Amino acid sequence: MYKLYSMQRSGNSYKVRLALAVLNTPYQAIEVDILRGESRTPEFLAKNPSGQVPLLEVEDGRFLAESNAILWYVAAATSLSPESRIERAEALQWMFFEQHALEPNIGAAYFWLSLVKGGRDLQTHALEDWMERGYAALQVMENHLKSHTYFAADQLTVADIALYGYTHVADRCDFDLATFPSIRAWLKRVEHTEGFVGMDWRPGSEIEDPATVAAGV
Amino acid sequence: MYKLYSMQRSGNSYKVRLALAVLNTPYQAIEVDILRGESRTPEFLAKNPSGQVPLLEVEDGRFLAESNAILWYVAAATSLSPESRIERAEALQWMFFEQHALEPNIGAAYFWLSLVKGGRDLQTHALEDWMERGYAALQVMENHLKSHTYFAADQLTVADIALYGYTHVADRCDFDLATFPSIRAWLKRVEHTEGFVGMDWRPGSEIEDPATVAAGV
Repeated sequence: MYKLYSMQRSGNSYKVRLALAVLNTPYQAIEVDILRGESRTPEFLAKNPSGQVPLLEVEDGRFLAESNAILWYVAAATSLSPESRIERAEALQWMFFEQHALEPNIGAAYFWLSLVKGGRDLQTHALEDWMERGYAALQVMENHLKSHTYFAADQLTVADIALYGYTHVADRCDFDLATFPSIRAWLKRVEHTEGFVGMDWRPGSEIEDPATVAAGV
Repeated sequence: MYKLYSMQRSGNSYKVRLALAVLNTPYQAIEVDILRGESRTPEFLAKNPSGQVPLLEVEDGRFLAESNAILWYVAAATSLSPESRIERAEALQWMFFEQHALEPNIGAAYFWLSLVKGGRDLQTHALEDWMERGYAALQVMENHLKSHTYFAADQLTVADIALYGYTHVADRCDFDLATFPSIRAWLKRVEHTEGFVGMDWRPGSEIEDPATVAAGV
């Protein structure tokens, strides 16, 4: 069984938990609170020198990092992976777009505004850039979704899972999706997928701190 | 035959040209000078709404964007693509690392310091961040290469091509590789690959402006 090192409130970690839930793949979840330095301990750094979650232990002692590479691995030969060479490449196109255009902007805004106390004051100037570039990324997605149901292969794939991770928290960090109707419809489509779980869902355990979840962090 | 829209001096474009050269795959190269706005014309935006190069025309009217997705596509079922599921995922792990840890920092520094006249003065503050995060990425690569010949699958793969793109221009934009001996040895290994071409090599044409090439831009 996979061991997944992840943080409940991390969008990158959530992507992997969402894919595993949709695929109905069992796994052992190990919570790593990066805000408390748990990804910087010698023990964790021995597993992932980059000190980042999510991290998948594929087999004893073999670790895979990078959320989108983990998605690719767990979805291989499943319904979430396109079959043809060109459609696989188109799914990857959107996953690379996610990592350089969406995650560094909406992901960064979410982290500092939703997870870090006083983060807004610490990041006033950076926030302007994140908003501008985040909206630009959303516009690229909106334009695509005007004429497509999903991002690749006319079906839900790992590309949708990857993009859903941070797009669905955009409204928790100042982004207004009012002018992106196609994105809002796509978010709903993803949420109606069989097996879908929200970011706050925890495998095999009750929610530990309902107040935190209610606050949307 | 593939049509590749690329810019000679872009590291992301070069990655694809390098892979096609190593694979001895013929293609038609179309130069798009983003510094002169050629990727923002209505004609180009109809091909790639993101307005970025490289862009591969896979077949008539079907375009693939994102350098690393293009690499994945052109290398499918070749010697540059790992065979096993876990090794493919490990190659992708390094390609996603490249797009969020290396390219936004060394790539940005290269663009502003090497390609844009007066860029250093325009980006004084950002440059500090790029240097810090770029060196951190180089350290992760150095640590891996201390005990590995290549990044994935014990062989040259698309992951090496992706990482070579901007690592090999680090010394053109203030980065000093003196304390990264494993990276320097790996750069040499890539350069000794059969079919290797440098960033300044142009398919099917003479170099138009030797002075520009000599200046290393």
